[in-house]
Amino acid sequence: MSKKVYLVGAGPGDPDLLTIRALNLIKSADVVLADDLIGDKIKNLIPPEKFIDVGKKSSNLSQEEINKLTVKIARDGKEVVRLKGGDPFLFGRGSEEALYLKKSGIDFEVVPGITSAIAVPASVGIPVTDRRITSTFTVITGHEKTDDSRINWKALAELGGTIVILMGVENLERNMNNLLKYGLDPDTPVAIIEKGLTDDERAIYGEVSNIAKIAKDENVTPPAVIVVGEVVNLLR
Amino acid sequence: MSKKVYLVGAGPGDPDLLTIRALNLIKSADVVLADDLIGDKIKNLIPPEKFIDVGKKSSNLSQEEINKLTVKIARDGKEVVRLKGGDPFLFGRGSEEALYLKKSGIDFEVVPGITSAIAVPASVGIPVTDRRITSTFTVITGHEKTDDSRINWKALAELGGTIVILMGVENLERNMNNLLKYGLDPDTPVAIIEKGLTDDERAIYGEVSNIAKIAKDENVTPPAVIVVGEVVNLLR
Repeated sequence: MSKKVYLVGAGPGDPDLLTIRALNLIKSADVVLADDLIGDKIKNLIPPEKFIDVGKKSSNLSQEEINKLTVKIARDGKEVVRLKGGDPFLFGRGSEEALYLKKSGIDFEVVPGITSAIAVPASVGIPVTDRRITSTFTVITGHEKTDDSRINWKALAELGGTIVILMGVENLERNMNNLLKYGLDPDTPVAIIEKGLTDDERAIYGEVSNIAKIAKDENVTPPAVIVVGEVVNLLR
Repeated sequence: MSKKVYLVGAGPGDPDLLTIRALNLIKSADVVLADDLIGDKIKNLIPPEKFIDVGKKSSNLSQEEINKLTVKIARDGKEVVRLKGGDPFLFGRGSEEALYLKKSGIDFEVVPGITSAIAVPASVGIPVTDRRITSTFTVITGHEKTDDSRINWKALAELGGTIVILMGVENLERNMNNLLKYGLDPDTPVAIIEKGLTDDERAIYGEVSNIAKIAKDENVTPPAVIVVGEVVNLLR
């Protein structure tokens, strides 16, 4: 008899930002399959005898192999917590794992986590919305390949509001140029929060027109959360 | 000497979806100023002697009065937890309260919460993103007045991807018509999750072209989270 799989969000890395449900499931599960992205402090909470590191860096497992391993353990009658950074369903392939479980006939439940798309800006005092200055909040990932971007940059620039870019350091210059090309005000404030919610957190500020140069000068490296919009300066 | 104010997200109402930090702060604070939106189960966790209900329904306090009360208590030397539904900085006026505290010279910290914009869809098996079918995730509120909508509906319809509408029951028909008018595919799937993550949760499904009629026939009432996009059908 297969056991249930819990797809659990670990939040941005601070154990205090785990939900109570996530912590209880980590304690009660037979096996915890965890990504690199959950961070060392949360890894240290997982009893070593039930911890399997399936992070792509440390384990070299492909997504398909992780999916198969999860199903195998559940079919062995063990309750699995599949622990993922942030929220399982906001980017990060949680939907693919859920679909695989469904097709495999394995019962699963999703436990949401705090997403760094909101929590990391908040940690430096940036609210992602404010009704006086923005009516929309859009999250994208910045790491798409140059030639096959499926993001409609014209529509995104015209929508404006608050735009949060995850995994956006590598393509920062290209993505800012996309927004400028389609008419986003070059003076729109931008913040880059590097290593958010860790002891090494650093925030860099600029505008759409110059943030790529500033980030280069400051040697910004991933991981980082990028916020574009008037909200950046609201509480500064 | 003023004490610190914690602007804390209570999440969507299930006490298990509080963060560890939120629960610890509720326990340690001198005073908890709480909104109606946090829900009865979380209200019941707050020791009655420190609980002040500032919900707009039950207390009749204006936003300005809540701001002043928060500052007054902090200046009296009491540690305040200002507990808000969902995440304090994703809609819900957390930014206005933070700005007021800053202008009043009161030290504050934001503690993020699980947002219903992601968690409620997840509770019925809808991932807000999937890299194969959507590259953007946009959250808006649907309760803007007819004549002064600051949302660029043309850009939103052209951006497509996943659109989550909070507080959108009242203006559902108008908002769906806005999306249709600017070319969003009428067959785009829509889900309305009424009273999400409560015992009375109900999900209604349709398409952009017919969901307003279906919602009327089914007598959908607030609160509800509305999801527009191909992700709606991914795991169904």
